Amino acid sequence: MIIINKVHEAKEIVSAWKAEASGSLGFVPTMGYLHEGHLELIKKARADNAKVAVSIFVNPTQFGPNEDFETYPRDLERDLQLARMAGADLVFAPDPSEMYGHAPFVTMTAAARTNVLCGRSRPGHFDGVVTVLTKLFHIMQPDKAYFGKKDAQQVAVIKGLVDEFFFPLEIIPVDTVREEDGLAKSSRNVFLTADERMEAPKIYKSLKAGRLFSEKEKPGAEEIRSYILASLQDIKGAEVDYVEVLQYPELIPVTDQSSEIIAAAAVKFSGARLIDNLIWTRSEK
Amino acid sequence: MIIINKVHEAKEIVSAWKAEASGSLGFVPTMGYLHEGHLELIKKARADNAKVAVSIFVNPTQFGPNEDFETYPRDLERDLQLARMAGADLVFAPDPSEMYGHAPFVTMTAAARTNVLCGRSRPGHFDGVVTVLTKLFHIMQPDKAYFGKKDAQQVAVIKGLVDEFFFPLEIIPVDTVREEDGLAKSSRNVFLTADERMEAPKIYKSLKAGRLFSEKEKPGAEEIRSYILASLQDIKGAEVDYVEVLQYPELIPVTDQSSEIIAAAAVKFSGARLIDNLIWTRSEK
Repeated sequence: MIIINKVHEAKEIVSAWKAEASGSLGFVPTMGYLHEGHLELIKKARADNAKVAVSIFVNPTQFGPNEDFETYPRDLERDLQLARMAGADLVFAPDPSEMYGHAPFVTMTAAARTNVLCGRSRPGHFDGVVTVLTKLFHIMQPDKAYFGKKDAQQVAVIKGLVDEFFFPLEIIPVDTVREEDGLAKSSRNVFLTADERMEAPKIYKSLKAGRLFSEKEKPGAEEIRSYILASLQDIKGAEVDYVEVLQYPELIPVTDQSSEIIAAAAVKFSGARLIDNLIWTRSEK
Repeated sequence: MIIINKVHEAKEIVSAWKAEASGSLGFVPTMGYLHEGHLELIKKARADNAKVAVSIFVNPTQFGPNEDFETYPRDLERDLQLARMAGADLVFAPDPSEMYGHAPFVTMTAAARTNVLCGRSRPGHFDGVVTVLTKLFHIMQPDKAYFGKKDAQQVAVIKGLVDEFFFPLEIIPVDTVREEDGLAKSSRNVFLTADERMEAPKIYKSLKAGRLFSEKEKPGAEEIRSYILASLQDIKGAEVDYVEVLQYPELIPVTDQSSEIIAAAAVKFSGARLIDNLIWTRSEK
């Protein structure tokens, strides 16, 4: 496995791969501290492509001033081992100065699908996401890029980015990987206390209860939302940041015409804010 | 020569070219109504590359509300003939609805090198330029893209775009093509009256006089500017929009450290606003 941290090195290797016509390139952008969710993305990329590149970059521009950029967990040595075991051919792990070397000449703004869910409480977050991904897509030139459905809003925004600017690549959303008790895997789960770790699976249980309620009773979006919110409020030591029920992937209010529905929640524990979601197809009323 | 107007068709042809490993691709983005300046770009691309693609697209997002989008000259049949004769393999001529099909999910803003020269009087112009070029670069995936030095600010902004986002391509600036009397070729020259056409070459003469003054007298930037302005004010029937003397390509004020200098002017006649510039290396004081 090749490990590099300079943009020009990454570009040279990708150019050489393209010149060899060595087949399709799958790309898994990450912020490191890899867990089974990331490994699932790498394994999927491995199964689909001749070459697999992974980036490990804690992107400063997608963190707000009061967010956890400094304390976001990092362990490059462990990440490299895991990426190698999952089948990566290349890991690109640049410094922030390599990706953002000067005051920006051109800026990008995520203008839709952002002012809901996590985006509402993280102004500018998705601007940083579309900016870094545009850079990474140009450096790695993948045929396919893999993202977890756990951050469903991120998938929706990135699909918007790729559609908007005709990027020559395909976005592949991959199912959320969960612990046996249903808790979605996350780098931030390590910050839960033992008690909080016992409570946290109730997020997913609440979303599933909401889906069941939706399928059985055919309620409106606001009723589904209230039903899930009531269930989340029973989680001990947690504060519900939001619950929203929207049309997917547009992330606009549900209407009678909406076919795909997302129920998404963010819940704050003492040391970590966790997110999860469920997307389902609404049956006829 | 292949003529297409759909994004997916362009992508398919470029993909096929890449799969054949048919050599480098040169790209000449234009707004059509081709003149010798454009043909020079196409010929240069033809000499440098195995394949040459030209786009013809009057980009609505780079025109302000009071600018000449509707009346900008168009003649696709003639353009196709000229592009073929100059050696293009493909012309991509999409409709605005093909390039801008919906309210944008993500927007781009040119944040530097813009609030001077033409950019100062055309707010949002370069936002439209970087947006359409990002789209066109993703569709055509060129190895090299060719731009005329006549719009020196455009070259500076596009170099900034490509550097900022690590686009996997090279920007090739090409010398301004001039009439025998020195007037820079432009699609808008057809709108000059006969009298204005006689006067218009004085724009270039004034810039050259400024360069000569700079080389002989080693004056400061403001003195060079005043010298050129006085000369331009002698042009009959014309109004000077701006003259600026700046460091190139940064387009910041000249200092003792500045090595490359640009003198650029915009002059309004009754039916057309013309621009021209000269870039030179400052010798030691």
